[in-house]
Amino acid sequence: MPAPQPLPEGFLFDLDGTLVDSVYQHVLAWHQALGEEDIHLAVWRIHRRIGMSGGLFTSILARETGIEPEPARLARILRRHHEIYVEHIDEVDPLPGAHDLLEALTAARVPWAIATSGRIETARPSLELLGVPLDRMVIVTRDQVRHAKPDPDLFLAAAERLGLPMHHATIVGDSVWDMLAAQRARGLGIGVLSGGYGEGELERAGAYRVFADPADILAHLDEIGGRR
Amino acid sequence: MPAPQPLPEGFLFDLDGTLVDSVYQHVLAWHQALGEEDIHLAVWRIHRRIGMSGGLFTSILARETGIEPEPARLARILRRHHEIYVEHIDEVDPLPGAHDLLEALTAARVPWAIATSGRIETARPSLELLGVPLDRMVIVTRDQVRHAKPDPDLFLAAAERLGLPMHHATIVGDSVWDMLAAQRARGLGIGVLSGGYGEGELERAGAYRVFADPADILAHLDEIGGRR
Repeated sequence: MPAPQPLPEGFLFDLDGTLVDSVYQHVLAWHQALGEEDIHLAVWRIHRRIGMSGGLFTSILARETGIEPEPARLARILRRHHEIYVEHIDEVDPLPGAHDLLEALTAARVPWAIATSGRIETARPSLELLGVPLDRMVIVTRDQVRHAKPDPDLFLAAAERLGLPMHHATIVGDSVWDMLAAQRARGLGIGVLSGGYGEGELERAGAYRVFADPADILAHLDEIGGRR
Repeated sequence: MPAPQPLPEGFLFDLDGTLVDSVYQHVLAWHQALGEEDIHLAVWRIHRRIGMSGGLFTSILARETGIEPEPARLARILRRHHEIYVEHIDEVDPLPGAHDLLEALTAARVPWAIATSGRIETARPSLELLGVPLDRMVIVTRDQVRHAKPDPDLFLAAAERLGLPMHHATIVGDSVWDMLAAQRARGLGIGVLSGGYGEGELERAGAYRVFADPADILAHLDEIGGRR
């Protein structure tokens, strides 16, 4: 009898803070967009909410500030966040190793996809920075699922698009919301420090390993199932 | 025999990220100033160095990027960081509770001072946001000591200016460098999350308590010796 052939591990990546160095620009764009509507929230509190769904972000905002923006005001905040972020897009770089990591996985025929809580119009300029042709990537954005992170929908949809069973999926993200969504999706979570969260926060949210950034993951790829 | 009269605790505060919500603007100002000199460092790595002395920051930069800027180039980076930061100063707010905390300490006649790794020209606009007259504050800046954090000089100088023995000093800061400098000065360290570091990072660096921000400290002032 032949030995059972284990399935290879597949990788589902978050985008902002995980592959692209855009978290701090997003954080200050939210801060400015909220400030223009006279909603004042300390910057670190915005940082700690980045990566979760905009709807949840707004509920938390309402709870923490007592302000519940009506739909028109909320739409203005979302639009201004996008405008301000795009104004600063030329200050955004890919994270060290991001391009090489994706290329290495492709070369080894290890399946991978990107799943982001952002909408496609905000994600597109970041995706273009990665230097991987968009038509070669499997990408799931906020627009395509009912609930964003920390709900598991984005990662479940990405795995389905790859034909990857979730018990063979490793989910790589910089935020607590990625790690919580990984647990709810029954995937394995790997944290990266490149979004500015602390190691302890990521481990407490369920990361089974934490690396500095994509270059550090690439250097340890064999340890985490990233080979055929 | 009368009971020994314990000295009251005095408080030495860091400025950026501890009293003023300026860390993320500082981080992106450094990122832009370095980028203009074609030095590319991921934003989170800059964030993790914020609050330490500029000299140490440069040494680490040299080690991590292999770039050792000559003095003229370094001076340009420092100047541009200051210019870019000041351009964004109207996006900087005091942190919640900062003004009230300092007023409460003053009212209770608990000695307090501010000790910052920044230079006076960068610190002044932040200090003005606190709404406490500058002539009523004891302030020690980078210009006034040999070594900045994580060396203990800034906190030692601030305590001396207050006439406060270090074994009655509580040092409040948002960064690992504040907590390390507190240990080297033999003061007690209290961390705040408002600079965007994680709780675990601050505790591992020696914080004996961690609060969210100045408002949270004010709500727990009696627990940490902040009363006459």
